[in-house]
Amino acid sequence: MSQYVYTFGNGSAEGREDMKLLLGGKGANLASMNHLGMPVPPGFTITTEVCSYYYAHKRTYPDTLQSQIDSGIRFVESVSKTGFGDKKNPLLLSVRSGAPASMPGMMDTILNLGLNDETVTGLIEQSGDPRFAYDSYRRFVAMYGDVVLGLKPESKEKEDPFEELLDAKKKTTGVKYDSELSADALKELVAEFKALIRGRLGLEFPDDPREQLAGAISAVFGSWMNDRAIVYRQLNRIPAEWGTAVNVQAMVFGNLGKDCATGVAFTRDPASGEKVFYGEYLVNAQGEDVVAGIRTPQQVMRKASQEWARNHGISEDDRKDQYPSLEEYMPDATKQLLEISDRLEAHYRDMMDIEFTIQNDKLWMLQCRVGKRTGMAAIRNAVEMVEEKLITEDEAILRVEPNMLNQLLRPIFDKNELKKHTPAARGLNAGPGAATGRVVFHADDAVEMAATGDPVILVRIETSPEDIRGMEAAKGILTQRGGMTSHAALVARQMGRVCVAGCEALDIDYTAETITVGKRSIRKGDWISLSGSTGNVYFGKIPTRPSEVIQVLLDRTLDPMDAPTYRLYARLMQWADERRRMKIRTNADQPDQCINAVAFGAEGIGLTRTEHMFFEGDRIDAVREMILADDLEDRKQALSKVKPYQREDFEGIFRVMNGKPVTIRLLDPPLHEFLPHEEEAQRELAETMGITFEEVRDKVEELSESNPMLGHRGCRLGILYPEITEMQSQAIFEAAAAVQKEGIGVYPEVMIPLIMTSREFKAQAAVVRRVAADVMRETGQRLNFLVGTMIELPRAALVANEIAKYAEFFSFGTNDLTQTCMGLSRDDSGRFLPYYVANSLLLHDPFESIDQLGVGQLVRMGFERGRSSRPDLKVGICGEHGGDPASVHFFDRIGLDYVSCSPFRVPIARLAAAQATVIANRK
Amino acid sequence: MSQYVYTFGNGSAEGREDMKLLLGGKGANLASMNHLGMPVPPGFTITTEVCSYYYAHKRTYPDTLQSQIDSGIRFVESVSKTGFGDKKNPLLLSVRSGAPASMPGMMDTILNLGLNDETVTGLIEQSGDPRFAYDSYRRFVAMYGDVVLGLKPESKEKEDPFEELLDAKKKTTGVKYDSELSADALKELVAEFKALIRGRLGLEFPDDPREQLAGAISAVFGSWMNDRAIVYRQLNRIPAEWGTAVNVQAMVFGNLGKDCATGVAFTRDPASGEKVFYGEYLVNAQGEDVVAGIRTPQQVMRKASQEWARNHGISEDDRKDQYPSLEEYMPDATKQLLEISDRLEAHYRDMMDIEFTIQNDKLWMLQCRVGKRTGMAAIRNAVEMVEEKLITEDEAILRVEPNMLNQLLRPIFDKNELKKHTPAARGLNAGPGAATGRVVFHADDAVEMAATGDPVILVRIETSPEDIRGMEAAKGILTQRGGMTSHAALVARQMGRVCVAGCEALDIDYTAETITVGKRSIRKGDWISLSGSTGNVYFGKIPTRPSEVIQVLLDRTLDPMDAPTYRLYARLMQWADERRRMKIRTNADQPDQCINAVAFGAEGIGLTRTEHMFFEGDRIDAVREMILADDLEDRKQALSKVKPYQREDFEGIFRVMNGKPVTIRLLDPPLHEFLPHEEEAQRELAETMGITFEEVRDKVEELSESNPMLGHRGCRLGILYPEITEMQSQAIFEAAAAVQKEGIGVYPEVMIPLIMTSREFKAQAAVVRRVAADVMRETGQRLNFLVGTMIELPRAALVANEIAKYAEFFSFGTNDLTQTCMGLSRDDSGRFLPYYVANSLLLHDPFESIDQLGVGQLVRMGFERGRSSRPDLKVGICGEHGGDPASVHFFDRIGLDYVSCSPFRVPIARLAAAQATVIANRK
Repeated sequence: MSQYVYTFGNGSAEGREDMKLLLGGKGANLASMNHLGMPVPPGFTITTEVCSYYYAHKRTYPDTLQSQIDSGIRFVESVSKTGFGDKKNPLLLSVRSGAPASMPGMMDTILNLGLNDETVTGLIEQSGDPRFAYDSYRRFVAMYGDVVLGLKPESKEKEDPFEELLDAKKKTTGVKYDSELSADALKELVAEFKALIRGRLGLEFPDDPREQLAGAISAVFGSWMNDRAIVYRQLNRIPAEWGTAVNVQAMVFGNLGKDCATGVAFTRDPASGEKVFYGEYLVNAQGEDVVAGIRTPQQVMRKASQEWARNHGISEDDRKDQYPSLEEYMPDATKQLLEISDRLEAHYRDMMDIEFTIQNDKLWMLQCRVGKRTGMAAIRNAVEMVEEKLITEDEAILRVEPNMLNQLLRPIFDKNELKKHTPAARGLNAGPGAATGRVVFHADDAVEMAATGDPVILVRIETSPEDIRGMEAAKGILTQRGGMTSHAALVARQMGRVCVAGCEALDIDYTAETITVGKRSIRKGDWISLSGSTGNVYFGKIPTRPSEVIQVLLDRTLDPMDAPTYRLYARLMQWADERRRMKIRTNADQPDQCINAVAFGAEGIGLTRTEHMFFEGDRIDAVREMILADDLEDRKQALSKVKPYQREDFEGIFRVMNGKPVTIRLLDPPLHEFLPHEEEAQRELAETMGITFEEVRDKVEELSESNPMLGHRGCRLGILYPEITEMQSQAIFEAAAAVQKEGIGVYPEVMIPLIMTSREFKAQAAVVRRVAADVMRETGQRLNFLVGTMIELPRAALVANEIAKYAEFFSFGTNDLTQTCMGLSRDDSGRFLPYYVANSLLLHDPFESIDQLGVGQLVRMGFERGRSSRPDLKVGICGEHGGDPASVHFFDRIGLDYVSCSPFRVPIARLAAAQATVIANRK
Repeated sequence: MSQYVYTFGNGSAEGREDMKLLLGGKGANLASMNHLGMPVPPGFTITTEVCSYYYAHKRTYPDTLQSQIDSGIRFVESVSKTGFGDKKNPLLLSVRSGAPASMPGMMDTILNLGLNDETVTGLIEQSGDPRFAYDSYRRFVAMYGDVVLGLKPESKEKEDPFEELLDAKKKTTGVKYDSELSADALKELVAEFKALIRGRLGLEFPDDPREQLAGAISAVFGSWMNDRAIVYRQLNRIPAEWGTAVNVQAMVFGNLGKDCATGVAFTRDPASGEKVFYGEYLVNAQGEDVVAGIRTPQQVMRKASQEWARNHGISEDDRKDQYPSLEEYMPDATKQLLEISDRLEAHYRDMMDIEFTIQNDKLWMLQCRVGKRTGMAAIRNAVEMVEEKLITEDEAILRVEPNMLNQLLRPIFDKNELKKHTPAARGLNAGPGAATGRVVFHADDAVEMAATGDPVILVRIETSPEDIRGMEAAKGILTQRGGMTSHAALVARQMGRVCVAGCEALDIDYTAETITVGKRSIRKGDWISLSGSTGNVYFGKIPTRPSEVIQVLLDRTLDPMDAPTYRLYARLMQWADERRRMKIRTNADQPDQCINAVAFGAEGIGLTRTEHMFFEGDRIDAVREMILADDLEDRKQALSKVKPYQREDFEGIFRVMNGKPVTIRLLDPPLHEFLPHEEEAQRELAETMGITFEEVRDKVEELSESNPMLGHRGCRLGILYPEITEMQSQAIFEAAAAVQKEGIGVYPEVMIPLIMTSREFKAQAAVVRRVAADVMRETGQRLNFLVGTMIELPRAALVANEIAKYAEFFSFGTNDLTQTCMGLSRDDSGRFLPYYVANSLLLHDPFESIDQLGVGQLVRMGFERGRSSRPDLKVGICGEHGGDPASVHFFDRIGLDYVSCSPFRVPIARLAAAQATVIANRK
């Protein structure tokens, strides 16, 4: 019989920390904290296997599950000395999801389960507090009504219907705050809530605790497939197969009086990464209140509390009185919490995110997990933990998700521009960076307006998981309520969005779609600017400017010694470079791009697209003349006009790269891409060329193609018009010779695109090599160079052994290889690819991260077969996957020599390559 | 030291019959005839290795070649007791190409080499005939001027410049025939020819025999890469790497007087296949005269001669006098020739094509080779040789090139229509079948007019290898001059073109572009009809009708017992069917196509394209309604209108196929293919649908794609619109249930197209299987069926093991697999693919015959991986390669269960599959 239920509590547990896949992260860590002897309310975990079973069997459960759950409940009853459904001393439960990978707030939670009109009397008896008991009861009914029974607001403009009843009750009883409602009022609310459910859903609220539990468990498993969970998994590449576990745990109460509190904390600051305990709490509250950001929480640490008060213009006396730190308010519990924090960091060797509740002065740990953090914090933690000897350099490298480096490169406000603006308000600096954009108030609007190309700032009273697509579409997120650990803050940091949270001075009106601060007001579509680093909010548009790392590396406007962020970046990059096996190159077509790429650590150019050069200035005229040429003579004459431009561009690139390899791809796109398609432009062109409009139009028609992706392009151009290959080769080698003569190193690698057969390569390479020999003879410069090819058709990978007989290097063009291998046109697949990813027909967009199972096989095959013919074949990739960490790992496993990516992704590729080496060395 | 020269003569030879790749076919057979003790003029063969060397080394030769040639000449001198360049007794040579695969007339030949103003006197002395000597000399100079020095007509309308001088000389000397020119006139012509060369080319004609020989050898090697040789190799898939050998042989003369003759013959009739010696000869002529078709040759056999005379209205007396058979004219030589013919057939066990010359009553064999023949003859030879116990059934199967079966299926004239026409003229029945088309006179015009879609008949005084593309484009070929073995006749038979040759009654005027017979005249573009079976030529258009095999099998208008051709076909097919391992299916969308296919032996349907059914009649309206539907409800409603049509079609097909498997592919093309693209039609559609024109236009624009081949099509439609899959599945299974209820067997195989991932398949197959279960439950019919997929994307082949976990069969869609694997759009590749094939960048068009090296690897991989997951996976192919014999062989080697091809290619596939088995069993 399979074990589907694992109990924990009282310092022991059936599960273990290493059983994350089975118990979920939360379940495994609850077991672990028990093993560490920390105070954890007893409970049990229903495994992820049950979730898989549930979806594989039309949402039913294994036969033996119920009896195992029953045993679990008996265990909890015995540890907590309560009875589930007991009228005197009832066991109340929390039911929470817990997937193997953290998905904060994505799935459902139910608290206070077990309450009904009978057990509530037991709770009154036990707590001696009818108000508390009915407050718990009304919360439970509302939560259950929403999560399990599915009673939602009727539209996005409407408030939660339970909240509406709550607000009405406050009005009729003449109180302002929830906490002022009397036990009777709350009792009435329970009845009103149940009536609402009956009225809207035609359902009787279940009174039987066991029925409640069964419903809650199904709701949690069901939430695994809700839209926001699916979107979250997509964004975070979490396999749907993993499933979630369900954690059923005895309730402890942070809302049982003034000697109760609840809070969340990080063992270090999750925004800056500073080694300082960072926590927020609420007195007399349940945990969800902190995370949901409905009340602005107080600080755990005194110092942080003082700073917060300063920022909010609150006097020290008022602070101590109204917003004391936990350190001051409950010094013993705080001391225990800090000790636990240290032990957790020492045990997990990482920054931890913890949830705790204090019930009648007793501290309970509700969960712990590795803490989410900003890119900045991740880097700082990694570097400093090495310096603290807590982790190794190898571990530090693995601790930073390479894309997090993006956050160090993200813009900040231009200081001079900023001086002209006064903040309209100030909130929490919840997601670093600077953003400016147009205001929208709903996630859908954010998606819509972002699609027009305008930057968008999503402004919400508070965010919820339903907003996730809108947050993704926005440049920045601004909320009125919620702390550093609110939903908005957590998600924004993870997505790398600028975020200012808990900016309470704002008055947000969803209906009028306005934000008002005092007398100033802006509306939907107006500009707003956020500093995610200071928490300042500005009405109006403030230009942004480069980050510290950019200022040091690219602008050279900042001394590295004055740039602490840069120090961390440089240290991490140094460790990465010391380790990584693969070289990192860049895709760049112009000298200025090359300069950036080298500053970011590029060790060569993996792809220079010569056709981009064709469009600059008047050059396009000569190119068009070449295309319109009737015969070889005319074509050669037109080509001779293009050549000086090409040579000049190549000279510029060679100078910057100074001896580093420069891979230049010969003309690739179909010729029709260079001709105008509008009649107007065709008439102009005809005039410029001194031919008739009809001639131009006919040529455009003659060249048009049904499937240009599979048409007359790549080396197929050079094969039919060897004079183009000849001209480009001349430009390359003449430039190389000229620059070498200046004493600068040059190392061109001429790349022939879209090779399908070895014979094509042989024919084109012969032209290139002949031209090289001619130029060397004419200039007297002896040039080192390679001639190789792009492997971007499945056939090329399949016959790579033949091609490598003639080619000195391969560069996988994984964009086109993906298109042909999968039969997916990048331009057209937008109609169905998002559906595919959302419905797990594909695990991810194969243009973002390489399809390892399919396209990856071709890369491996091409690599192995190429090397079998030519053991010293140089092999890299130059598709956009070169900047995707998962793809970089894959290419390292295959054994490629280098990856090439856009200049701004070079640091990411360097780190990802280092991670790949570290992982490989571990095995 | 490599041996580059192999001598033969006097009953011995350095080469052997099995050295064809080295010595070429001609060289190997010359060696063989020597070993058989037959009379062969001495000579030597320069190997194909020299040809390869020549092209690999910028048209230069290996160092030791010259000395080996010198030795070869000394050998020939010693056997023939002559001296090369000797003034008294000069050795004269023929220099001929000879490739491993026969390429008749494709490459160059030079005769009488060694003549100059000095040696010609020796030839006069030896022959005692100054006229003969100068005739040989002027022929040599003209041939050398043309072939080696490259003196060509100035335009296609112009005659050969040497012929012009010859004609002028006949006029000035007042004679009608070449043979009437005096020795002095011929001597003058030699000087005039040389002056022409000097004037036009600025070259002195080389007098040194060794210089002549060197030039001739280079010309022969050079001719390997001339346009017509390249085209020929393309058409016949002969690798350019093979190269040609050069045969240098002592001249013998068929033009040394009345006791001389030259001829070509076949050991059996090459047109009908009848077992009767078939030869043509000319008295006092050189061999090229027969082949070139300039003079109408006489028959070797008396019986054939008599028949010829009857057909030409020549009395027996006149015949005996003017056109005697060789049998009558030179009975001894004929007897020897027939003996040699029998020995050659017994030795080679095949029908042989032989060239002979009789010099002063002595018979010389100039070459022998396996004879080209019509499809009819090939089949008859193969079947009859088995019946004669000359060859085995296995050999018979290998003797017939499967495409030759096409000729048995080719149309004949409708007899009733034919009665209404009187032949305008009669020529030789050189290529069987009947053809009607528009007259053109030049090969280029044939290509051009054929491209418009009109059938074309190419009419030439005589054809030459330059005409080959035009012959390919034409339905039929008509020549004024030349015999059954003329260039026109040989090539037409091989290409399967209808041909009437040597129709001397015609007066063809290239300038006026007219054909005149007596008073009747037609011009370019007029209709003409040819019977390649009787040799009759008709002015006007005569409808054609089905062949004998078609009449027996499809029309059932002919009793098999009255159909001798059908007997041969049936016998051969029986042997093939007894042997072949693979099943043959057909691609058919309609019941009538299925009936044909079954008659041709199809054992199932490998591909029914459901979308073809969408276009018939009003159905397209419902289909368009479905596409234009705004939501699921509307779409389902439109689909419900389409369903009855689909069901009806499937019922018809199931009835015909009666239990044989029927593979039905679900909707494949992108939806925009069903919408009109012209504004006019869009407006009409809008009206029909009751929506605005703008809505239609917007939908068309919304659906348009950059690369539809890689777009939203195949199962990607069914994934996003499962209701389409559902409707089609319902139509299939409802039809199956209905037909099965009638007591007819049904076996549907539902095929899901364009699968990229196993998850897509799983999702679509679930819909199909669910519908099947529903229909079975509703109808109470238990249906046998399979659900499988088309493997047409490289990725599908790569992950075939995953897909086969869910799919019960695979069918390789090799058309699309070729497009994606090679990155070749079939619609667009016309711009460069012909160049690729012509220049050996590809060995053949990969859409005609599968690219075994690339695409073939994916087929093999898909097959092996699929079977690894599901050992009983049924695997076939349904691309157009299923009807290409070379591809069929390849698929058999891989191990596929079946191939599927168009109905008319089913017999071809059956034979090809049998050949594959025979070849496999031999190994």
